[in-house]
Amino acid sequence: MADTYVDDVKLTKFCTEVFVRLGVPRKDAHITSEVLVASDLRGIPSHGVARLMRYVDGIRAGTILPKVKPKILKESSTTAAIDAKHGLGQPAGFFGMNLAIKKAKRSGVGFVTVRNSNHYGIAGYYSMMALKNNLIGISMTNSAPLAVPTFGRASMIGTNPISVVAPAAKQRPYVLDMATTVVPRGKLEVLNRLGRPLPLGWAVDERGVPTTDTARVLDNMGKAAGGGVLPLGGAGEDLSGHKGYGMSLMVDMFSGALAGTDFGPWVKTKKKDGSKGFINVGHFFGALKIDNFIPLRRFKGIMDEMLGGLKGSNKAKGEKRIFIHGEKEFEKYDLYKKKGVPLQDKVVAALKGASKELGIPYNIKK
Amino acid sequence: MADTYVDDVKLTKFCTEVFVRLGVPRKDAHITSEVLVASDLRGIPSHGVARLMRYVDGIRAGTILPKVKPKILKESSTTAAIDAKHGLGQPAGFFGMNLAIKKAKRSGVGFVTVRNSNHYGIAGYYSMMALKNNLIGISMTNSAPLAVPTFGRASMIGTNPISVVAPAAKQRPYVLDMATTVVPRGKLEVLNRLGRPLPLGWAVDERGVPTTDTARVLDNMGKAAGGGVLPLGGAGEDLSGHKGYGMSLMVDMFSGALAGTDFGPWVKTKKKDGSKGFINVGHFFGALKIDNFIPLRRFKGIMDEMLGGLKGSNKAKGEKRIFIHGEKEFEKYDLYKKKGVPLQDKVVAALKGASKELGIPYNIKK
Repeated sequence: MADTYVDDVKLTKFCTEVFVRLGVPRKDAHITSEVLVASDLRGIPSHGVARLMRYVDGIRAGTILPKVKPKILKESSTTAAIDAKHGLGQPAGFFGMNLAIKKAKRSGVGFVTVRNSNHYGIAGYYSMMALKNNLIGISMTNSAPLAVPTFGRASMIGTNPISVVAPAAKQRPYVLDMATTVVPRGKLEVLNRLGRPLPLGWAVDERGVPTTDTARVLDNMGKAAGGGVLPLGGAGEDLSGHKGYGMSLMVDMFSGALAGTDFGPWVKTKKKDGSKGFINVGHFFGALKIDNFIPLRRFKGIMDEMLGGLKGSNKAKGEKRIFIHGEKEFEKYDLYKKKGVPLQDKVVAALKGASKELGIPYNIKK
Repeated sequence: MADTYVDDVKLTKFCTEVFVRLGVPRKDAHITSEVLVASDLRGIPSHGVARLMRYVDGIRAGTILPKVKPKILKESSTTAAIDAKHGLGQPAGFFGMNLAIKKAKRSGVGFVTVRNSNHYGIAGYYSMMALKNNLIGISMTNSAPLAVPTFGRASMIGTNPISVVAPAAKQRPYVLDMATTVVPRGKLEVLNRLGRPLPLGWAVDERGVPTTDTARVLDNMGKAAGGGVLPLGGAGEDLSGHKGYGMSLMVDMFSGALAGTDFGPWVKTKKKDGSKGFINVGHFFGALKIDNFIPLRRFKGIMDEMLGGLKGSNKAKGEKRIFIHGEKEFEKYDLYKKKGVPLQDKVVAALKGASKELGIPYNIKK
């Protein structure tokens, strides 16, 4: 399957039109599309426009409400609790992170929870909003239960990503953006399409036993039949899988419990009482003003030295390069901005289908 | 080697006297001893009184100054930057976390950096101080370079622990307290004493190649000859070792760069210019007031449900129990409070040596 390269700005406009036709206010439609395309531009197609139809389906099914506005439930000079009212996760996340940034600029720190939300795309989009303001940015979200706790065999917790970013001067910013599981679900799906086995240590079967059977794990996930992806560190405690499990739990503590929304196994449409309801994803955003601790210029200088030192340090046998987190994605971004965003045939077909159905001209080629 | 069981209160008093004889003010001597003994009580002997003589040696060598007081360099209602002035890490950490707690109680959040410090013991001691105040607590520290970055072979970064804690109602609190490497150095030392090989995935040799040779890795570490422990997730990117590496870097960003102190490979007495100097460890503390986001009672109820749900979920084949982070340590604490703290012969011998040398009665038996 050869990729088709499309123009990121045209692609964003196209997706925006799709959301607008479904009743999403233009501003919200635009930010949602921008978050999706940002993921493709950064080389993370699993969270990009490949997911457009899932959002469309959610709006049509009524699990995502297109017209609602996030509401501030509680607020102080440093904190806020927001209700996303079951709208799209991206506008709610954008609103939440902007509020955290505003508070950090004024009061040194800002922390914001969001409840009753939906999938918000890549965690790193929001944390990176802090960089323009020379702040440290934090973004977390809980997500549909796909991972097993250490010594468990039931999907009890999400892949719960965490992103933390910090600016540097000459070096690119440090952009950590990671699922707290060994891998996100998307990586399993890629191997499944290629008919390849899983590396041992990524997932367990319905008995909780490590397996390389890609199709079986995904099939189990689809049916909620047990098993799932492993926390970072793998199965058991030998390679410290309990640490990854602990971090997933931390993300759910901040995004689920502190936000006062659903958590762990209940971040899905089928609810505790058996009824069908909203997914109720929760997010957590933070921003810290560097100047409150150390002059910004000095901080950036130290970051340059730290990041440059790591990149320049001795390589392991056979290795040519040591990366800083976010570096590969910045390089992809630069490349795809010029060359166009690569889309798989399946994604192109879905976009063309939407174009036809909704009467939106398909004109996104680079 | 049978362990000797000693009384934790008497042990704390004994250690306090040791520090007092070395010129440490009684209050600082007490808190330092309390942090050490808390680690033993929680079943983490690697960070307990087994390290007493390292602190004693540090004070005698002049790399830890016994009489200094931490100084607030910069302060706002939500943040502070502290200079530990090369004193013991524990009193500086205690001071820093208390300040973060005070700010969180008053302003919703409190974040405090500490520079020019020393090893502060277990990260979890400080974060857990937040629990008495029904706050979420955060504690991080950078540490001597022992870990290699992904694709690297030089010890460029510490085992950089992070601790995050949150209260529950009926369940014990959630207490994450983890090195961001697969294992801390102490676990390698335990295997070395037993003459056992390392599990593959814990460490790399001086070429950056995964190895099971325990003695070789420790020998290399001692000589700074290359190699070291691996980030959580192991070697390369197959099992996402880059994520553990990214978290170590995050801890150093907060504790090293934001605190404005030494970082990565320079957290040691041998400095960049070849001179011998202070270790300049950095810490980062945070506290969040739960009530600012959601009523405390509701938060604790959700935590109960989340933690209870995980513990009660289906076990993997052959497994009997799913743990919450901190649970094992709380159980050890309850046991050792009653039965006494177990000390290895080597540690008992060191304490008896200190007793004789400093003229402090050795009377710590349970």
